[in-house]
Amino acid sequence: MATLNELAELIGGKVVGDGSVTINRMAPIDTAGPGDITFIANPKYLAKLKDTTASAVIIKPGIECPGVSLLVCENPYLGFAKVLTALHVKRPEPQGVMEGAFVSPEAELGADVTIHPGCVVGKKARIGRGTILYPGVVVYDGVQIGEDCLIHAGVLIREQCRLGNRVVVQPGAVIGSDGFGFAPDGKSYYKIPQMGIVGIEDDVEVGANVCIDRAAMGVTLIKRGTKIDNLVQIAHNVVVGEDTILVSQVGIAGSSQVGNHCTLGGQVGVSGHIKIGDNTMVGAQSGIISDLPAGQVFSGTPSMPHKDWLRASAGVKNLPAMRKTISSLQKRIDELEKLVKER
Amino acid sequence: MATLNELAELIGGKVVGDGSVTINRMAPIDTAGPGDITFIANPKYLAKLKDTTASAVIIKPGIECPGVSLLVCENPYLGFAKVLTALHVKRPEPQGVMEGAFVSPEAELGADVTIHPGCVVGKKARIGRGTILYPGVVVYDGVQIGEDCLIHAGVLIREQCRLGNRVVVQPGAVIGSDGFGFAPDGKSYYKIPQMGIVGIEDDVEVGANVCIDRAAMGVTLIKRGTKIDNLVQIAHNVVVGEDTILVSQVGIAGSSQVGNHCTLGGQVGVSGHIKIGDNTMVGAQSGIISDLPAGQVFSGTPSMPHKDWLRASAGVKNLPAMRKTISSLQKRIDELEKLVKER
Amino acid sequence: MATLNELAELIGGKVVGDGSVTINRMAPIDTAGPGDITFIANPKYLAKLKDTTASAVIIKPGIECPGVSLLVCENPYLGFAKVLTALHVKRPEPQGVMEGAFVSPEAELGADVTIHPGCVVGKKARIGRGTILYPGVVVYDGVQIGEDCLIHAGVLIREQCRLGNRVVVQPGAVIGSDGFGFAPDGKSYYKIPQMGIVGIEDDVEVGANVCIDRAAMGVTLIKRGTKIDNLVQIAHNVVVGEDTILVSQVGIAGSSQVGNHCTLGGQVGVSGHIKIGDNTMVGAQSGIISDLPAGQVFSGTPSMPHKDWLRASAGVKNLPAMRKTISSLQKRIDELEKLVKER
Repeated sequence: MATLNELAELIGGKVVGDGSVTINRMAPIDTAGPGDITFIANPKYLAKLKDTTASAVIIKPGIECPGVSLLVCENPYLGFAKVLTALHVKRPEPQGVMEGAFVSPEAELGADVTIHPGCVVGKKARIGRGTILYPGVVVYDGVQIGEDCLIHAGVLIREQCRLGNRVVVQPGAVIGSDGFGFAPDGKSYYKIPQMGIVGIEDDVEVGANVCIDRAAMGVTLIKRGTKIDNLVQIAHNVVVGEDTILVSQVGIAGSSQVGNHCTLGGQVGVSGHIKIGDNTMVGAQSGIISDLPAGQVFSGTPSMPHKDWLRASAGVKNLPAMRKTISSLQKRIDELEKLVKER
Repeated sequence: MATLNELAELIGGKVVGDGSVTINRMAPIDTAGPGDITFIANPKYLAKLKDTTASAVIIKPGIECPGVSLLVCENPYLGFAKVLTALHVKRPEPQGVMEGAFVSPEAELGADVTIHPGCVVGKKARIGRGTILYPGVVVYDGVQIGEDCLIHAGVLIREQCRLGNRVVVQPGAVIGSDGFGFAPDGKSYYKIPQMGIVGIEDDVEVGANVCIDRAAMGVTLIKRGTKIDNLVQIAHNVVVGEDTILVSQVGIAGSSQVGNHCTLGGQVGVSGHIKIGDNTMVGAQSGIISDLPAGQVFSGTPSMPHKDWLRASAGVKNLPAMRKTISSLQKRIDELEKLVKER
Repeated sequence: MATLNELAELIGGKVVGDGSVTINRMAPIDTAGPGDITFIANPKYLAKLKDTTASAVIIKPGIECPGVSLLVCENPYLGFAKVLTALHVKRPEPQGVMEGAFVSPEAELGADVTIHPGCVVGKKARIGRGTILYPGVVVYDGVQIGEDCLIHAGVLIREQCRLGNRVVVQPGAVIGSDGFGFAPDGKSYYKIPQMGIVGIEDDVEVGANVCIDRAAMGVTLIKRGTKIDNLVQIAHNVVVGEDTILVSQVGIAGSSQVGNHCTLGGQVGVSGHIKIGDNTMVGAQSGIISDLPAGQVFSGTPSMPHKDWLRASAGVKNLPAMRKTISSLQKRIDELEKLVKER
């Protein structure tokens, strides 16, 4: 519950209308009523504005609507996210170490942590202030987790890995499993000990059942602000830059580097020892087998500039027709050759 | 153990031969002996019928075999499944809340539940009659699970999600993880709280390490009877229809809708906001980037009718040869032009 | 800590220089100093040899370097792996059944096992000598695990499955989930009980969040020495041969057989009932829909010999250009036909 003025201050927006109105909840434009705030990020829904009975609407500058209070900001979708968080997300009260949690006496716990039943925290592990471990989280020896993290149920973090502050890990993710390294001895494979760690910087989100392998030596690094969707695989010694998006089921092989502000679409595969520049986008299901420059869009396996891929894909679909065309050209040339040579 | 007559009644079949014979177990046709029942679903195994020493054979109508009792039904494979279940699947005796399980006093448990050690059941969660939670299952606050469900070890179900009756969840599946929603603020991403839930209707099966994200608002819905194989990703606000099959490693992006009685092959990717009609089949590894009509078969990335894909794939393989053909045509035209112009 | 002579004996190598020098740790060539051993497996780093201050270098025969002790062996990378293991990998002291572990009184535990808090071990399960179960491992009734296995946190092993000796399972893997088998009854699907098990032979490694389904009847089998990367899916009744490599996110459908010494690249999909011969390699993201012979390299969907795939892929990229060429040929033929017929 907040006044519209308070929400405007929160998101850095401007009220047009009655700023003293009390807002109880966020609701979609079609169902929002009195006491609700809603938002319009897509201009095609502007027509619905005049019929709404919502108490307020988050909206871009330059739109007028006398009957309803407006919360005007440059990025209504971002405003929506912030207001939604303010109205509806409440961090649970800290519970300390709950019954049924096993925390090593040698672990170091910050103030206001919550460690649910079924969690196991190893020796010399460090859990920062305000961090919550949901049930069944396993933290091996020597792990360091920063402040205000949310580590959801069943997350498994192996020895010595490091997480920054405000990291969110969805259920079932594995951080610090052994990298996939084996030395062939001619017939069999000999395991190469994976001596490194995983480092996850501040404000990263890790999806459900994601796997991030520890480095062979050194660190597999996920930089600040990057968001990783469910079931993504990140191999040993990979470096993922800042504010990058890895959509579900992406797989990145060993030692590859993904730049800052990149987006890799769902099910993309990246070979080992590849470099992807900053601000690069890769279409879903693409296979990256060579370095990609910064700031462009790629698709396909092997990947090519997205526009080329669209044309090539259309070409593939058209191959049976093309075959027929070639065959008919062939016949016409046969005919011509006969005619010309006869003379 | 059952008589053949009892099994016939169970599956709605007809006995030809001695219905009073006692059947102890199901066995494959090659190893079945006295006391065993076997089945023939594929006509190519009919020749084995005359040599079997099995006590009974489940079989289609219209086949005669004097020496052996037959259990005749229209769908012998379905009959096999039902008889196998009757003879071999025994629900374990209910154990109640076992030592080492942590169940909130505010949770509501039906009769005859079993909650194994290492389970954690949150406040106001509801577990229906006869449901089994295997070890290490985590049920967050407010979750509702119906009757006679089997929730295997390590399954993680986040707050407020709802499961119907007779739902089977294989180990390690995650239900209700946050949808992958972030609002860009120009440089970084701001998390959009995922306020919705996951709803799973009756008789659904969820595979091992599957991820089903909660809706941003509303519900990510898996309808009655649908079967989901291992490692499938279902994003927020997706709706999957009734009796649909999602094979392993399928990924479905946000807000897409899959119809009833569909089959998506292994590793298929579906973009966001796509509609797939009822009774549609999609070949393995296909990428769906636009709506698909009902009742057809599609393959490829981007997908096309399966028959076209077969032709296009053959064309791709043939591209180097096609290139040579074009090159030779080019030379012949060069030659012709020279000849014609010379005259 | 070991002398160079001791390490040479361990890996079957020969010392050139001072074998009595004490080695404390393995380090990369760029940072290795006194007391360190390093290795050169790739000839392009040989130039760095003369500047190193490492106490010893593992290296191929035939290289001389007066200032530094050499540990000469045919396979320096393998030598590196073995020395790294000897110097740095120390099995933790056995802890027995730790507080917070739930082990059935009917389970059978070998000497020197460690069973961490949060583990649950079922009736008639057998855990071999020296095996470690990290926190949160669930072992259903009747499971047999051999000696000296490392079963990492959160691994879930269903009833009756069998693991050999020295098996390593990374966190979150699921072994023995139900195979994906359903009998259609016209409208819905009826579950076929999965009566078989999973068998994992000696020296296999199973990656994080891998899923290996139990057989419908019989056994889903992973043979000796095979290494499985994270998030791989292995369906019911699959057989994977010895010393085979399955890279991350591979999916193998029911009843398929992969030979010995194969490598399947990341995200490869294999249809059901396929046979892949020994020593076969499959490129990343390929789709295998028919049997593959032994000893060759395949790529693409549907797969073809790798060389053909390279040419076909180049052809796809070139399709828009090819289209233009065809179109220009067409015009030239039109022109020629006009000319020829006019005469």
